Amino acid sequence: MLGAIEAGGTKFVCAVSDGDFSSIDRIIIPTQEPADTMAGVYAFFQQYAITALGVGCFGPIDLDPGSSMYGFIRSTPKLAWRDFNILGAIRDRFNIPIAFNTDVNVAAYGELQRGAAARGINSCIYITVGTGIGGGVIIDKHIINAVNHPELGHISVKRYPTDSFAGSCPYHKDCLEGLAAGPSLAERCQGDPRHLPANHALWHMEAYYLAQAIVNYTLVLSPDKIIIGGGVMQQPRLMAMIKKSFMEQMNGYVNIKDVDNYIVSPQLKNDAAIIGGLIMAQELVGNGNCHRAPAERRSLSHDG
Amino acid sequence: MLGAIEAGGTKFVCAVSDGDFSSIDRIIIPTQEPADTMAGVYAFFQQYAITALGVGCFGPIDLDPGSSMYGFIRSTPKLAWRDFNILGAIRDRFNIPIAFNTDVNVAAYGELQRGAAARGINSCIYITVGTGIGGGVIIDKHIINAVNHPELGHISVKRYPTDSFAGSCPYHKDCLEGLAAGPSLAERCQGDPRHLPANHALWHMEAYYLAQAIVNYTLVLSPDKIIIGGGVMQQPRLMAMIKKSFMEQMNGYVNIKDVDNYIVSPQLKNDAAIIGGLIMAQELVGNGNCHRAPAERRSLSHDG
Repeated sequence: MLGAIEAGGTKFVCAVSDGDFSSIDRIIIPTQEPADTMAGVYAFFQQYAITALGVGCFGPIDLDPGSSMYGFIRSTPKLAWRDFNILGAIRDRFNIPIAFNTDVNVAAYGELQRGAAARGINSCIYITVGTGIGGGVIIDKHIINAVNHPELGHISVKRYPTDSFAGSCPYHKDCLEGLAAGPSLAERCQGDPRHLPANHALWHMEAYYLAQAIVNYTLVLSPDKIIIGGGVMQQPRLMAMIKKSFMEQMNGYVNIKDVDNYIVSPQLKNDAAIIGGLIMAQELVGNGNCHRAPAERRSLSHDG
Repeated sequence: MLGAIEAGGTKFVCAVSDGDFSSIDRIIIPTQEPADTMAGVYAFFQQYAITALGVGCFGPIDLDPGSSMYGFIRSTPKLAWRDFNILGAIRDRFNIPIAFNTDVNVAAYGELQRGAAARGINSCIYITVGTGIGGGVIIDKHIINAVNHPELGHISVKRYPTDSFAGSCPYHKDCLEGLAAGPSLAERCQGDPRHLPANHALWHMEAYYLAQAIVNYTLVLSPDKIIIGGGVMQQPRLMAMIKKSFMEQMNGYVNIKDVDNYIVSPQLKNDAAIIGGLIMAQELVGNGNCHRAPAERRSLSHDG
């Protein structure tokens, strides 16, 4: 039996599955104080004989195996979780191989491996646009973690011509997240952006920023596919506006043959991180040479 | 004997070496019409019994092994070279394994493998700022080519507050290259930017743009090291200004412990692409399982 945890800032999803990656059981635990939340996690998994666990965790997290803080949640605004050793806490309870990475990296991995996107592609970027903007990166079928995990949401962007909003990022003010995550939309319209009509000017602005980010990710990483989801993407017309703006901003510099097949919605919907976690768990036990967490597996695969 | 070609828009450098990667002979050929330039290339290498060749070529080039244009130079402004099958031309002359990639990717590989930067690092970004802005990316000791090679120079950037220059990129106007490559500086100061005093306001602007780009590359790729060179970097105070602006713009979001060891000058100076090409050539013949060009070797190493 395999286990997966999607440790999010709002809720923890825990699931167990056998080898086909459809959950046999799952539980949703609201994210409260670490002790309370983790007690629920332990109680769930203790019902099952799991052999490996894949964990996708909200960030920032320390993924440097050489760091004394490896496996810790770092400078999150959720103060109770700041510098909480979540990997260590799970390891103390379950003496099994554990794969550990960011929620968005694990979701990206799930999408690449299992989503409809997976057919013949080796690389993807997974972006989620909600209360923040996060992203995971898969290159050559492996999660990218070099020194740290990507922080795609905080890139700087060029202003939309008529946008004078100062930006809501506490670190950078008007980075992508500061200008285009849900809270910045809510602040601009003084309400819930979900109630804005589909042709509201704010959606054109939103599409411009997200498309610009996708242009930049494309130029830097040249992936096979960009997968974009999250609460803000529930505005049904936004996807088409992003694609249009992307083609305009790219202006033919990189030849994207079929934008509808390049910028896509998540195929696994809300299950990407859980399925990614289950796949990563299976990889830990499915191969006699691979009993390592993914951040280490990466080195093993390339050099060994 | 190994061979390397740095095929640049201004000059071709050809070199031969034995296993220690210091050239035994080299030649510089001005980049003219393909037939003339390539004749010089052939004549040089025909003097030697080379067993493999590493080629770093100006771009954009097609690096998709499944493409009918694989190995071609594509939409370059140098019209005589547009859609020239440079890899095919070399293959027709020399029936040996050939590694083929962009000049900046090959230079990045050389820096990673041989430069002082190499000690204990697995990933780097190599940026050159001259008549254009180009970049190569090494992750996990491998050149990144997903669908295509990176085009780091064309990312969009936020404006420097006082900069009203329209931008000189024919595709995007005010992308990074359009705002920060040499020609944009020359146009702004109506002269040779090398003659500007070190404290001229244009250098602060230049540092802001390059630092902003490095912030974005860092957030997307999280490499071990950023190597930045090229003609514009010959302004001796620019490097320090870039580091300062980088730390200001990053504003502590990603913890860069030692910026002086993170943003560095090329250690191999002008030899990075030639040395990278020689190393890639050696890899083609040094291992019985690896008789492939790097773009293919990448798949082999990861999946095979």
